Amino acid sequence: MKPQRLAQLGLMLAMGLTTSAQGADLMTRAQQTFDPVPQYPASLDGNELTEAKVALGKMLFFEPRLSASHLISCNTCHNVGMGGHDYLPTSIGHGWQKGPRNSPTVFNAVFNAAQFWDGRAADLAEQAKGPVQAGVEMSSTPERVVATLNSMPEYQQRFEDAFPGDQAPVTFDNMATAIEAFEATLTTPNARFDQYLRGDPSALNEQEQEGLALFMDRGCAACHDGVNLGGQSYFPFGLVTKPGGDILPQGDKGRFAVTETASDEYVFRAAPLRNIALTAPYFHSGAVWDLEEAVSVMGTAQLGTKLEPNEVEAIVAFLGTLTGDVPKIEYPVLPVSTDTTPKPDPMVP
Amino acid sequence: MKPQRLAQLGLMLAMGLTTSAQGADLMTRAQQTFDPVPQYPASLDGNELTEAKVALGKMLFFEPRLSASHLISCNTCHNVGMGGHDYLPTSIGHGWQKGPRNSPTVFNAVFNAAQFWDGRAADLAEQAKGPVQAGVEMSSTPERVVATLNSMPEYQQRFEDAFPGDQAPVTFDNMATAIEAFEATLTTPNARFDQYLRGDPSALNEQEQEGLALFMDRGCAACHDGVNLGGQSYFPFGLVTKPGGDILPQGDKGRFAVTETASDEYVFRAAPLRNIALTAPYFHSGAVWDLEEAVSVMGTAQLGTKLEPNEVEAIVAFLGTLTGDVPKIEYPVLPVSTDTTPKPDPMVP
Repeated sequence: MKPQRLAQLGLMLAMGLTTSAQGADLMTRAQQTFDPVPQYPASLDGNELTEAKVALGKMLFFEPRLSASHLISCNTCHNVGMGGHDYLPTSIGHGWQKGPRNSPTVFNAVFNAAQFWDGRAADLAEQAKGPVQAGVEMSSTPERVVATLNSMPEYQQRFEDAFPGDQAPVTFDNMATAIEAFEATLTTPNARFDQYLRGDPSALNEQEQEGLALFMDRGCAACHDGVNLGGQSYFPFGLVTKPGGDILPQGDKGRFAVTETASDEYVFRAAPLRNIALTAPYFHSGAVWDLEEAVSVMGTAQLGTKLEPNEVEAIVAFLGTLTGDVPKIEYPVLPVSTDTTPKPDPMVP
Repeated sequence: MKPQRLAQLGLMLAMGLTTSAQGADLMTRAQQTFDPVPQYPASLDGNELTEAKVALGKMLFFEPRLSASHLISCNTCHNVGMGGHDYLPTSIGHGWQKGPRNSPTVFNAVFNAAQFWDGRAADLAEQAKGPVQAGVEMSSTPERVVATLNSMPEYQQRFEDAFPGDQAPVTFDNMATAIEAFEATLTTPNARFDQYLRGDPSALNEQEQEGLALFMDRGCAACHDGVNLGGQSYFPFGLVTKPGGDILPQGDKGRFAVTETASDEYVFRAAPLRNIALTAPYFHSGAVWDLEEAVSVMGTAQLGTKLEPNEVEAIVAFLGTLTGDVPKIEYPVLPVSTDTTPKPDPMVP
């Protein structure tokens, strides 16, 4: 974390402690700190959302033949029927291997400044290439993916339609670009908190407003701000007090693996909190199932504060207002395999 | 297989060989042998298809928390986006175990006389209970399933709505009944062959009609008849010539395991052929990827006939007309887990 960001964090914490939780300006302050989920899909720099591209991306998102086993698709771990994730501490992948970190929700992921718990992918297209190739996830290769997609005439046609002008549109990069386009449509607008941010004070009840005030006053919003209430920057987990090894396993040093900078040890991207009530278990370790416990841990570890039970309850009540309308998705019909489609290989490597 | 059934089969084979393949009565004969897939969902004895029950059944069909791992749902192996199955020789289940037999398509399964390759389940409700409990598939228990469903208020309400009048509607049996109701809607009407059976001779081209004639004349239709062109009765695989152990593994004696009758060794339910072009690989072993090869094997093994290449091509062309309209399915939104939901247990047993 950069020094000015740490200073800013300290300033916000200090300000929070001296501000009235019940100020009449609660809504104004919230509007200055957070943004509602837009009603329409986000636009992406350099990746225009066309109908053809989004439809292709949806097929690829549900396509288990992108994995070596032909069993695992993006939707396996980012299940659009279950809050955009898999309700597992860490995901199960190729060969029933356990992934190293909790699978983040795909919903609203487009609003994160970077992807993965350590932010190692700049955007969703870069992210999409990771699990497809990871040995513990889908265990495929770019060559195998391209051969698979090229083996089915319908995919060839759809890549042509989605990437007009490309000489050879069926590429690993275009696969990722199409998936990113589809994922950009996986947003959850109209949460009660969004109605509040748009000016309706009755959208949050008294306890939820109290929770919102605490969320800002105690400093949670220093890291969890913006559209996604998180997902924008990196912070050490255990800023004040390191949690135990069950929650913060010593073997996973977070962003240090990306930057190899000592100050990035145990640094992670602040988790985005949209639909947090739907995405247990919590933290990169997936070690905590209970949202109240997760809030308490955050109080101790990040803020150096033991939150009172009624404060935790109020914050959790507020977090419950971050659940939006999940997207309606018609299951895509995938093309039939052909003679030249690489055969499933469940037992590699 | 009962003796009279074998005699009937012999008679049909003999008749077939003396009947002109190009008879003007082709359509009439086809109409006497096959039935079109109905345009509306099948009705089920003792299981009325109500909107509430079908909607619940759809949720359960996509519900990975019916498995011990929380990873595997019915849709994992009976993928509604991929012809109702998984394009694998044999399915991958709990702990990445390999199932013993090829996963049959769920599409039109309601028209089969019995379920599983050995017909050991009388109907889809009985079938649905199998994989949920099988150690190599979902590895759960009825108790765990009921505890899981009861832990989520939305499921409690939906079971009440689907089974009005039941004192305690959340049961393992009702789970299966609801899944059966949903699966009864997974039919694929309007195949070109159905248009032909309904009186449109132009729905099949010349080669396809030739394939249809061969299919009846050479005796394929003796076992593969009715709505599903199969799925109605049991026959020895290798009636005339046993295929090799790669296609007919010695360790799997088929229906013998159900009846313990010597004459049921290597006896299997005749595979239903609807959408066969979408459901490679073929046979209970899933050993054959190519439909032409599968047809050739059937000729040798079941009919004692070496089909000529142009005959195989014509039959495969005819089989391609059995592909119907696949159902449109909106991905269900599943309820959020609660404190009392049994935790995923990916490592049992």
